[in-house]
Amino acid sequence: MNEITAQHRIAHEPYYRPVADEVALFEAAYGAQMPVMLKGPTGCGKTRFVEHMAWRLGKPLVTVACNEDMTASDLVGRFLLDASGTRWQDGPLTFAARHGAICYLDEVVEARQDTTVVIHPLTDNRRVLPLEKKGELLRAHPDFHLVISYNPGYQSLMKDLKQSTKQRFGALDFSYPDHAVEVEIVAHEAGVDARTADKLVSIAERARNLKGHGLDEGISTRMLVHAGSLIAQGVAPVPACQMALVRPITDDPDMRDALDAAVTTFF
Amino acid sequence: MNEITAQHRIAHEPYYRPVADEVALFEAAYGAQMPVMLKGPTGCGKTRFVEHMAWRLGKPLVTVACNEDMTASDLVGRFLLDASGTRWQDGPLTFAARHGAICYLDEVVEARQDTTVVIHPLTDNRRVLPLEKKGELLRAHPDFHLVISYNPGYQSLMKDLKQSTKQRFGALDFSYPDHAVEVEIVAHEAGVDARTADKLVSIAERARNLKGHGLDEGISTRMLVHAGSLIAQGVAPVPACQMALVRPITDDPDMRDALDAAVTTFF
Amino acid sequence: MNEITAQHRIAHEPYYRPVADEVALFEAAYGAQMPVMLKGPTGCGKTRFVEHMAWRLGKPLVTVACNEDMTASDLVGRFLLDASGTRWQDGPLTFAARHGAICYLDEVVEARQDTTVVIHPLTDNRRVLPLEKKGELLRAHPDFHLVISYNPGYQSLMKDLKQSTKQRFGALDFSYPDHAVEVEIVAHEAGVDARTADKLVSIAERARNLKGHGLDEGISTRMLVHAGSLIAQGVAPVPACQMALVRPITDDPDMRDALDAAVTTFF
Amino acid sequence: MNEITAQHRIAHEPYYRPVADEVALFEAAYGAQMPVMLKGPTGCGKTRFVEHMAWRLGKPLVTVACNEDMTASDLVGRFLLDASGTRWQDGPLTFAARHGAICYLDEVVEARQDTTVVIHPLTDNRRVLPLEKKGELLRAHPDFHLVISYNPGYQSLMKDLKQSTKQRFGALDFSYPDHAVEVEIVAHEAGVDARTADKLVSIAERARNLKGHGLDEGISTRMLVHAGSLIAQGVAPVPACQMALVRPITDDPDMRDALDAAVTTFF
Amino acid sequence: MNEITAQHRIAHEPYYRPVADEVALFEAAYGAQMPVMLKGPTGCGKTRFVEHMAWRLGKPLVTVACNEDMTASDLVGRFLLDASGTRWQDGPLTFAARHGAICYLDEVVEARQDTTVVIHPLTDNRRVLPLEKKGELLRAHPDFHLVISYNPGYQSLMKDLKQSTKQRFGALDFSYPDHAVEVEIVAHEAGVDARTADKLVSIAERARNLKGHGLDEGISTRMLVHAGSLIAQGVAPVPACQMALVRPITDDPDMRDALDAAVTTFF
Amino acid sequence: MNEITAQHRIAHEPYYRPVADEVALFEAAYGAQMPVMLKGPTGCGKTRFVEHMAWRLGKPLVTVACNEDMTASDLVGRFLLDASGTRWQDGPLTFAARHGAICYLDEVVEARQDTTVVIHPLTDNRRVLPLEKKGELLRAHPDFHLVISYNPGYQSLMKDLKQSTKQRFGALDFSYPDHAVEVEIVAHEAGVDARTADKLVSIAERARNLKGHGLDEGISTRMLVHAGSLIAQGVAPVPACQMALVRPITDDPDMRDALDAAVTTFF
Repeated sequence: MNEITAQHRIAHEPYYRPVADEVALFEAAYGAQMPVMLKGPTGCGKTRFVEHMAWRLGKPLVTVACNEDMTASDLVGRFLLDASGTRWQDGPLTFAARHGAICYLDEVVEARQDTTVVIHPLTDNRRVLPLEKKGELLRAHPDFHLVISYNPGYQSLMKDLKQSTKQRFGALDFSYPDHAVEVEIVAHEAGVDARTADKLVSIAERARNLKGHGLDEGISTRMLVHAGSLIAQGVAPVPACQMALVRPITDDPDMRDALDAAVTTFF
Repeated sequence: MNEITAQHRIAHEPYYRPVADEVALFEAAYGAQMPVMLKGPTGCGKTRFVEHMAWRLGKPLVTVACNEDMTASDLVGRFLLDASGTRWQDGPLTFAARHGAICYLDEVVEARQDTTVVIHPLTDNRRVLPLEKKGELLRAHPDFHLVISYNPGYQSLMKDLKQSTKQRFGALDFSYPDHAVEVEIVAHEAGVDARTADKLVSIAERARNLKGHGLDEGISTRMLVHAGSLIAQGVAPVPACQMALVRPITDDPDMRDALDAAVTTFF
Repeated sequence: MNEITAQHRIAHEPYYRPVADEVALFEAAYGAQMPVMLKGPTGCGKTRFVEHMAWRLGKPLVTVACNEDMTASDLVGRFLLDASGTRWQDGPLTFAARHGAICYLDEVVEARQDTTVVIHPLTDNRRVLPLEKKGELLRAHPDFHLVISYNPGYQSLMKDLKQSTKQRFGALDFSYPDHAVEVEIVAHEAGVDARTADKLVSIAERARNLKGHGLDEGISTRMLVHAGSLIAQGVAPVPACQMALVRPITDDPDMRDALDAAVTTFF
Repeated sequence: MNEITAQHRIAHEPYYRPVADEVALFEAAYGAQMPVMLKGPTGCGKTRFVEHMAWRLGKPLVTVACNEDMTASDLVGRFLLDASGTRWQDGPLTFAARHGAICYLDEVVEARQDTTVVIHPLTDNRRVLPLEKKGELLRAHPDFHLVISYNPGYQSLMKDLKQSTKQRFGALDFSYPDHAVEVEIVAHEAGVDARTADKLVSIAERARNLKGHGLDEGISTRMLVHAGSLIAQGVAPVPACQMALVRPITDDPDMRDALDAAVTTFF
Repeated sequence: MNEITAQHRIAHEPYYRPVADEVALFEAAYGAQMPVMLKGPTGCGKTRFVEHMAWRLGKPLVTVACNEDMTASDLVGRFLLDASGTRWQDGPLTFAARHGAICYLDEVVEARQDTTVVIHPLTDNRRVLPLEKKGELLRAHPDFHLVISYNPGYQSLMKDLKQSTKQRFGALDFSYPDHAVEVEIVAHEAGVDARTADKLVSIAERARNLKGHGLDEGISTRMLVHAGSLIAQGVAPVPACQMALVRPITDDPDMRDALDAAVTTFF
Repeated sequence: MNEITAQHRIAHEPYYRPVADEVALFEAAYGAQMPVMLKGPTGCGKTRFVEHMAWRLGKPLVTVACNEDMTASDLVGRFLLDASGTRWQDGPLTFAARHGAICYLDEVVEARQDTTVVIHPLTDNRRVLPLEKKGELLRAHPDFHLVISYNPGYQSLMKDLKQSTKQRFGALDFSYPDHAVEVEIVAHEAGVDARTADKLVSIAERARNLKGHGLDEGISTRMLVHAGSLIAQGVAPVPACQMALVRPITDDPDMRDALDAAVTTFF
C-alpha cells in the first residue's frame, strides 16, 4: 500500500493554525468512523485543515474538486481499453476506500445531487461501495474516512444536498479566524511583517461587512496572503491591494470606490 | 450459485429491532412473490430492515443506490469490450433475478420515472426481464424478490413514481421508532448508556416537531447514533450533539438556536 | 424460426376472461394487418390480453416496456463490437418484424414522440423497416403484428401520441371488468374464495369513485390479486388490504382514512 | 448500381389516383432538378404519391422517417468499426445522392431545424454533399432528387422549417380527395363495395368539419381504408367504425358521442 | 497540395453578376488577411459570391453548413480508429488552414455561440489553430482565408454572434439585386426570355414589400430561378409561380391570396 | 523540455505598448506564483499582453479558447486508443503545468462554471493537478503560471465566475488605450500614417460613447487596425471604415447612420 498511496501522503506538516476545538472533534469523528462535513465560506482554510489532519493522522489524502459534470464513474472508476481488452481503473473514491485514505470531496454541492448518492453505502454502517460495472462489492478499508466541504452561501433551491445525504455526516463550521490569528496567518504565509498583515486584515474586516450589501462574498484569508505576497515582491501596498483584494471580486464602480477607500485608510 | 453470490450474503445477523408486524408482512409478501415498497423518512432503518430480512430468509442481497443518471443499462447490464470481442456483464437487477437474490433499489424515486419501467415485467406475473441488447428473455429465479424504498417527503411534481409502477408493489410504512425502542437502538449501536441514549432521543423528538416549521426533515435515529458515538469517543455531550445533530441539518441561525436550546435542556 | 423465437412462444394458455368482443375484433385486425392500440388504465389486463391473443394465434410475442430514454436503436438494433469486427444485433422491433412475431410496445406514450416515428413504415401498406445503419430495407414477415398500449389518463400536453401515429392504429378500449367478472378473476388468480374476492372488488369499486377526487388512479384488478394473495398466505384481511391496496397508492392522511374505512366496511 | 439499389426499386405500380396536376408538376420539377416539398395532413396520400412517382420515373426510392433524435450522421453516414479498422457506411441521403435515387424525408419538420441544414448544399445549384468526416465532397448523381413532406398543421413556434430551407423547394399541396375519388380509393384499397365506401367517406366528411372544434385532425383516407378492411373481414360496420375511426383519435366522451352518432347515421 | 485540394477547386467560372464594389473589397480584405462576414437574407447570392471569389483568386474552397449540433471537433478534426490504432482526420477548418483554402462557414449563427470561439485564434494576428487533442499548434497557410455568412433577420436573443467574434471580421452587406440586374440573373440561370424574367422579378418585388407584414422573408432570387426553370420545362407560368414562389413560403390563406394576385397581375 | 514546448515559444517580440504598470504587476504576480485574471472588453489587447509577457519572461505559452462545450477532459487530458491499447494525452492545462508554460484560458467565463473547478488545486498553495483517470497527482512545474481573461461586460446571472474561483486570482484591468497611445498602435499595426490613424481613433472614441445606447460594445483597437489595413491596401477610407468598423457591429439603421456620420466627419 505504501507505494500505491505514496504520492497521496502529505510529506511535510502543512501550516495550520487551529481556531477552536476542530482538531479534537475531527479526531473523534475519525475514531468513530463518522463522515465529516466542513461548512464555511471560500478561502477560509477548509482545504488546509484537511491536509493538516491527514498529515496528523498519518493517512494519505485523495482530494476531488467536485463539479456538475462529474459522473458517478468519475468517482467510482471505469473500464479502460487496453491492449489485452479492458482494464478496471479505480476512481478516487474507490481508491481511497480500498487503500485506507482520507477522501476529500471539495465543494460537493456542485456535484449533481443524485451523483452524490454513490457515497451513501460508504457512509452508513455498511461501509461498502458496490462497483456494479465490475461486479465487486468493495468493503472499505478500516482507515478510510470521507470528508466533504460545503459552502452554505452557495446553496440554492437548485443545488443543495439532500437530507438523506446531510444526515450521514457530522458537521464542523469554519469561518474567517479572529483578528489576531488571521494576522499571524497572513504574516506567516505571505512573508510580511505583522504591521502590514494587521493592516491587510483590517481592510478585509471592513469588506466582510459589505457581504450581502453589494458583495457576494467577503475578502478571504487567501486573498490577504495574495496581497501580502505582492508586497513582499516589492509592489507598493495600494496597487498590491487593488490587484489582489479589490479588482478580483467586484466590477461595480461604487463598490470599488468603497473598497479602495478602505485600502487607503490603512495604507 | 453459492460462489457467485457469496459476497452478497449477509454473514452475521444485522441488529434490527422490529417495530410492528413488518417482519411477518414482508415474509408473506416474499411468499406471495409480491414486490415490496418501503416508505419512510431518511435514516429510520429501512436499509437495515432489508438487510435483516435477507439474513432471515437466507438470501443474498443486492443493493442499488438509485440516482437520476442511472440508465436502464446500469440496472440491466451491458456489453464490455474484451480481448476476444465483447462480453456481457449482468447489471445488479439482472444478477439478482438470475441468481435468486433480493434486489433492493434504494431511493427509487431518484431514478428517472421512465427508467423504472424496466422493472415492470419483473413485477407482474410474467416475472421476466427482457435483455434486449443480448437477445435474451430472462425468467426470474423463484427466490428473486424486488424491494424498493421511497421517501414520501421527497416526492414532488417532477419526481414521483408512476401509478403503473406503484400499483405493482405492496407497501410497508416506516417511521421513527417509539421512545423506548429508539433508546434501546441508540444505546446498542453507539455504545452509550441508556440514560445518555434517552436524552438523545428526547432531543430528537423535540426536533422532529420542527419538521415543516423550518426543518426539512427531523433528526434521524442514525444521527442519534452518530452523537452517541462521539460521546463514546470522549467528546462532551454538547459539542457532540452540535456536530452530529444540529450543524448538519440547518444553517439558519434561529433554527440552530432552537436546536441548541433543546440540546442544553437535556445535557 | 422455431428455435430463434422459441423463448418468445407462450407455452401455456394465459388465463384471460373476455369482457366484450375484444377477442373477435383483435382477430379481425390481425387478419387485416391493421395495427392495434389498447387503451385503458394501469393494471386492468391489457398485457394479459396480448399474451392471451399471442397464445390463441400461436405467434411468438415480443414485449417492450417503452421509456423516455429508449432510442430508435433500442427498437431497431445496432452494431455490436465483436472479435471479428462488428456484428449487427436486431432490436426487438426488427426481431419481431423479421420472424413474424407480435410486437407489443407497452406504454408507448412514454417513448419520445419522435422515436415512435420509426414504426410508421411498418404500420402502413409498405410494412417495411429501413435499417439505415445496416443498409437493409426489411420487409415485414406476413405474420408480424404491431400492438401498442396507451393510458389515456397519462396523456399530457408534453406526452401524447401524434395524430400521424394514432391514425395508423385501430383502437380497443379496456377498463376494469364488471363486478362478477372481476370477482371471478381475483378468486382465480389469488387463490381465495369468492366471498373474499367479492369483498375485495367492492373495496376497489369504492376507491375507483375517488379517482380525480384525490386519487390519481383507482385500485386495479392487479392490486386486488395482491391483497388476495397475502390473505391466501395467512395475513389477516385488514393488514393485507392496507399493505396491498391503500399504502401503495396514497400518502395523504385523509385519503388513507377514507380507504381504510372502505376496507373495514367489508372486512 | 442496379444491384446496390435493387431493394429500393418499386417493383409493382403502386395504386395512386391523381387528384389534380400533381404528377405533371412533379415531373417538371424532377426535370428541372428542383427539390419538392409535399404539404398536407396525415394520411392523405403523400407517401403513396412519392412511391408512385418513383415507379413512374423508374428510379429507386429511399425513405427516411425523420425524428428529433436524428443526427446529421444518421442522414450522411458514419464510420463503423471493422475487423480491419473502420469502414465508411453511407447514410440514406448519401446513398441516394451517390446512386441517383429519389430521397424522401418524411415529416422533415420533426428533425431538428439545424440538422436539416445538411441538405442545403444538395438543394442549390452546387448539388454536392460534403462528407466531412470522410474528407469527400460528393457530387450528386444527375438522377438524384430530394423530396420532403411537411404537415402545416404541426408547425409550431418551436418546430418550423427555416426560410433558408423552405426557399430551396417547390411545393405541392395535398389534401383529402374529392368525395367520388375518395370513394373509389377506399373501395379499391379495402375491398369493399362502393356503397359501403360511400358511407365511410360521408362519415369522414362530417368528422373533418370538427377539426379545430375538439379534434386535432380529421379522419384520414387511411383510416377509412382501415374501417373498410375490418368490414371486409366480417366485422359489423358500427364496431368496425368505432375501432378504426373513432377510438383512435379521441378520448373525449362528447366528441366520441358526436362521432358515434355520425357512424350510426350512415350505418 | 494540388492533389489534396483538387476536389475543392472551382473548375469553371461560376456565374456571378457583381452588384457594387464587393469584389474589390473582398480582394482587399483577402490581401490584408482580414476575415470577412457576408450579411444578407437567404437566397440573395452570398454562397455564389464566395464561389466566384474562390475561382477568381484561384484558391480551393471548403464550405461548411453550420448547425447547432456541430461540435468543435466537427470543425477541427478528430482521431479515427484504424487498423493500426488511431489516425487523425483534419476537420474542414483545419484542412483549409493547413492547405491554404478559403473556408466558408455558412449560416455561422446556427452554430452554438461557444463553438465559434475555436475560430478566434485563426482570426487575429496569431493565425494559429491549436489542435489540442493532437498536441499540434497549426500555423495557418498564408493563403488561408476565413469567410462567414450571417443572416441578420435570424439573429435573436438566443442566437447571435458574440461581439468578440463579430469584431474579428470585416463585413459586406448583401441584398436582392436591382431590378435590371436581377432580370439578367433570372434569365441567365433559368433559361427564360427577358420578358418572363422581368415579370418574375416584378412579382418578387411585390412580395418583398410584405416581409414583416405576414411574410417572414421575401421571395429570393433563387426562387425566381426555380419558377423560371419550371416555365422552361413547359409548365404554365401561373402554376409554376404557385409551386415555386407561393406555396413554399406561406400556408396563410390571406397571404396566399395576396401572392396569387401578384402572380396573376403579371401573367 | 525545449523540444516539447518549442512550438509554444514566442519567437519574436510581440509588439505591445504598455498603458500603465501592468508589466511590473504581472511580473510580481509571476514571482509570487499568484494566478492572474485579465479583465476588459474585447479587442483591447489582453491576448497580445499575455504573448508579450510570455516572450519577456522567456516561457512557452499555451492558449485555450474556452467554450461552453469544453469538458474537464479537454483541459486535463484523456486516454486515446492506440495500436497497443490506450495512450494518455495531456490536455493543454496539464501540458503547461507539467512543462512550466504559461497557460492562458481565454474568455474563461464561457466555460461551464463547474468545469472551471479543475483549476482550483493548481491555484492555491498545493499547485497540484489530480489526473484522476490516469491515477497521477501532477505537481506543477515551478515556472507554470495560470492566466485567465474575463470580459465583465459579458457576465450575466447565468454565466459568472464563482467567488471561490475569483478569489484565487489577482486581477488587472484592461481598457482601450489613451488617444495618443492608440494612434501609435494603429499606425504601427496597420501600416498607415499617423494622420490616418488619428482619424480612425477619433471615430472609435465617438462610437465608444454609444456603448449601452444601442451598441453592445465599442469599436475596438483591433477593428481600427482592420480599417487601417484596408486603407493600406488601397481602399478609400470611407468604404474601408464601413466594412471594418460599422457593418460588423450593428444592423440597426439608425445606429449605422450615426456611425457613418462619425466616419464622414473625419474622412
